[in-house]
Amino acid sequence: MIELPLEEEGRSTRNLDPCILVIFGATGDLTGRKLAPAIYNLGKDGMLPSNFACVGFARRPKTHEAFREEMKQDINEFSRTKPIDEPFWKNFESQLFYHQSEFDSDEGYERLREFLDQLDSRHATRGNRIYYLSVQPKFFPIIIEKLSKHGLIYNPKEETNRWSRVIIEKPFGHDSASAAELQQNIAKHLAESQIYRIDHYLGKETVQNILVFRFANSIFESLWNYKHVDQVQITVAEDIGIGTRGHFFEEEGLLRDVVQNHMMQLLTLVAMEPPVSLNADAIRDEKVKVLKAIRPFTKEKPFVRGQYGPGFVNGVKVAGYREEQDVNPQSSVETFVAAKVLIDNWRWAGVPFYLRAGKRLPKKGTEIAVIFKDAPGVLFNLQGRKNDPNVLAIRIQPDEGIAMKINCKVPGPSSPIQPVKMDFRYGSYFGQSPPEAYERLIWDCMLGDSTLFARVDEVEQSWNILTPILKHWAEQPAKNFPNYPAGSWGPKEADEMIAKDGRSWRIL
Amino acid sequence: MIELPLEEEGRSTRNLDPCILVIFGATGDLTGRKLAPAIYNLGKDGMLPSNFACVGFARRPKTHEAFREEMKQDINEFSRTKPIDEPFWKNFESQLFYHQSEFDSDEGYERLREFLDQLDSRHATRGNRIYYLSVQPKFFPIIIEKLSKHGLIYNPKEETNRWSRVIIEKPFGHDSASAAELQQNIAKHLAESQIYRIDHYLGKETVQNILVFRFANSIFESLWNYKHVDQVQITVAEDIGIGTRGHFFEEEGLLRDVVQNHMMQLLTLVAMEPPVSLNADAIRDEKVKVLKAIRPFTKEKPFVRGQYGPGFVNGVKVAGYREEQDVNPQSSVETFVAAKVLIDNWRWAGVPFYLRAGKRLPKKGTEIAVIFKDAPGVLFNLQGRKNDPNVLAIRIQPDEGIAMKINCKVPGPSSPIQPVKMDFRYGSYFGQSPPEAYERLIWDCMLGDSTLFARVDEVEQSWNILTPILKHWAEQPAKNFPNYPAGSWGPKEADEMIAKDGRSWRIL
Repeated sequence: MIELPLEEEGRSTRNLDPCILVIFGATGDLTGRKLAPAIYNLGKDGMLPSNFACVGFARRPKTHEAFREEMKQDINEFSRTKPIDEPFWKNFESQLFYHQSEFDSDEGYERLREFLDQLDSRHATRGNRIYYLSVQPKFFPIIIEKLSKHGLIYNPKEETNRWSRVIIEKPFGHDSASAAELQQNIAKHLAESQIYRIDHYLGKETVQNILVFRFANSIFESLWNYKHVDQVQITVAEDIGIGTRGHFFEEEGLLRDVVQNHMMQLLTLVAMEPPVSLNADAIRDEKVKVLKAIRPFTKEKPFVRGQYGPGFVNGVKVAGYREEQDVNPQSSVETFVAAKVLIDNWRWAGVPFYLRAGKRLPKKGTEIAVIFKDAPGVLFNLQGRKNDPNVLAIRIQPDEGIAMKINCKVPGPSSPIQPVKMDFRYGSYFGQSPPEAYERLIWDCMLGDSTLFARVDEVEQSWNILTPILKHWAEQPAKNFPNYPAGSWGPKEADEMIAKDGRSWRIL
Repeated sequence: MIELPLEEEGRSTRNLDPCILVIFGATGDLTGRKLAPAIYNLGKDGMLPSNFACVGFARRPKTHEAFREEMKQDINEFSRTKPIDEPFWKNFESQLFYHQSEFDSDEGYERLREFLDQLDSRHATRGNRIYYLSVQPKFFPIIIEKLSKHGLIYNPKEETNRWSRVIIEKPFGHDSASAAELQQNIAKHLAESQIYRIDHYLGKETVQNILVFRFANSIFESLWNYKHVDQVQITVAEDIGIGTRGHFFEEEGLLRDVVQNHMMQLLTLVAMEPPVSLNADAIRDEKVKVLKAIRPFTKEKPFVRGQYGPGFVNGVKVAGYREEQDVNPQSSVETFVAAKVLIDNWRWAGVPFYLRAGKRLPKKGTEIAVIFKDAPGVLFNLQGRKNDPNVLAIRIQPDEGIAMKINCKVPGPSSPIQPVKMDFRYGSYFGQSPPEAYERLIWDCMLGDSTLFARVDEVEQSWNILTPILKHWAEQPAKNFPNYPAGSWGPKEADEMIAKDGRSWRIL
């Protein structure tokens, strides 16, 4: 399978291999909210292979019909295109099936194999398989082991006429050791080329656009280094709390939930060198190089951590983290993280990358802001007032787009200089919201394109950077939690950290 | 008088000296369309000195009241703020007066002096004078001579308590020799600091913004040189013909009418080095340096000239230039000009500046487009298709603003790269159209700020560049005129000129 990741043109004209997609955890939240709508929309857009079937795998007994009805309801509720297209659905649902089994039941996998073989003859899917593991991480090894044991995973070196691929949802481990162990377990049964570690951020249009933006335009790459960039700020802000995810969040914390995956992906895409080509490994090679160049964190200079107390978000009184459902009332789990990352390479020497992520912040917003050095202040800085620096802001969500802050003359003879925004918005420009990340990622997996999935060394490096912090935090539980009220921009330590450098956080 | 040209802040808080503005040619077209509305709007915006009077000077007999009534009608027709504010006007018109005289009548100037002295006592204008010469160029020397003779111009070295300034409308000469002669004549009576050679393009917000844009932003200046810029295109396109200006245009031609002044101003502002300060002479020193670095034009490589024949503009059939009113049916006057300008200095070595201006083109539009070099084509140029280069377009008119063309990913998994526009529009951003150029320029003259006026050496250099072309054209009348139909983008020679360099004109 040739990998042609971001090389867009002509992709849709290539034939997709026929295949069956098996979703493990088919009655879970992610399937309903994201996977079912994604598959439906791919189908509607004519982007599924003509020979295709989808099988939901879960523990509860259920008929095919009941499963289809549930998916239909989910699509009606969560799809970006609503309501469901009935004539299309009638045809489409005949490709959907349900398979009941425990995740560790040999008998269940045996039945699965037989069922998939049947579907192969009925739908001409030729033995090709994608297994989407939308289950709790503890089930990853057993599912893969059982799939392998029952002949559902093929050795790519021996079998060239049919393929099997596994999409693994995050988190991939919860520190260096556990990630290594998980990798060891699954590598017994799968080649790296068969593993698709998902990070749905990479499926977002604006994230993919970072590379296009950087390498298909001559002007930005010329400015993209320590000579012109003063600092980079990456923010992943959420106004919501943890909702019903208390159990999960108590085990994870924000560093694992957001920083290790999403933010590290954004960081590497912004900071990486131009790859030698656009194939998956060339790009991921460069991303790994960035991770390797990140200056290690030490106990003396750890990440800033925070946990929200009660407060007001958008004028509504909300509970503190420790009062949330399924949360330990003495929890020392972090809901906010801020850090200064230094990348010790030639391009970024001395340029700080400030990261900031949190729950229950004043608003929702993910952005990468490249803040340029000041212009020499000799001409337009009157009366000691400094002009704003130029900022290039890549908005990941909401309202995906790119904005550039430049200084302009306010009209009129006696008017000062004022920063204004040159703006490009995906939605208003192309007249439609971009497709959902999961559509792109499932489609890429069908094509055998792993560019937008995390390679094992990316995951390892990322854990290597963060595991010392996690250890330190576990050894020294925060004494001052909660240290920021819900609806604020995090604890004062985050402001102090950046203020020490003579800088401040961007206002989103 | 301290000159603080573009140093905007605090300007309006400085006191304007009281003064009287005398407009020569007060019954002319320019006064009605531009000057009367400008003075009215300055008054409405509270930007005139509290002690102020305006005197219209012209040959026709007229009462003060009749003159005021005419100005009122003009303002109602041409002002950017309409209709006239009656209560304000009632008060305002008491500052307006009319003075009848021939331009060469000693008696008339004697009466003028007496009248201005009277107004001084009535309006406390303290002897300060601006003379605005909105008359045919042939009258410039005689008016200045008579003003001087009758004590209406003060020697700035001798008199420090009161001042006199002269605003001279274009054209300043019609070639090197005539400009030098005019300068010689007026320099007998005026110091350079008293002469304000108007080019209304310099009063336009977007033109002034070129300097702010370049020198108050760090990112653009880093790109603003031969390393990153492939070419610059400056276009001054008009869809209209010459209207009732046949007499004038037959003497001038487009090179004198547009290129020698407006386009050279745009060119120097875009190409100049950062000035040591923002005072008038520092800026104009740098502009002159650009003009001096322009590689001379030769007979072998002249400008491309064109003249429109009959055609269609916006679907309407229009006459050719030779059929226009007051135009010689065998006229060889140019209505279109295109040229490739090379600036032989370190910043611009090898970067062509393509100029293009014309009448009866398909649409109206003035812009400066800085076209950057291509990105290395190794990543995103599939199937031999080149991506569009980045372009920074400064729109002078209409719809003043700045646009940047960048390459972006079209949403969707199989979509190509497409150029999109990041846009900044004055009108929509600041919620109002910028003030008229003449408001700014008259106000600057009151402040004694000559930054936005052409200094004598600018004018001389500009004529030095263009006079050889004018001479060559006069010696060799075009044989192929008319050589482009109205409603087209000029003669094929213009396309051939740029195509020879492997480039093409921008589509406006």
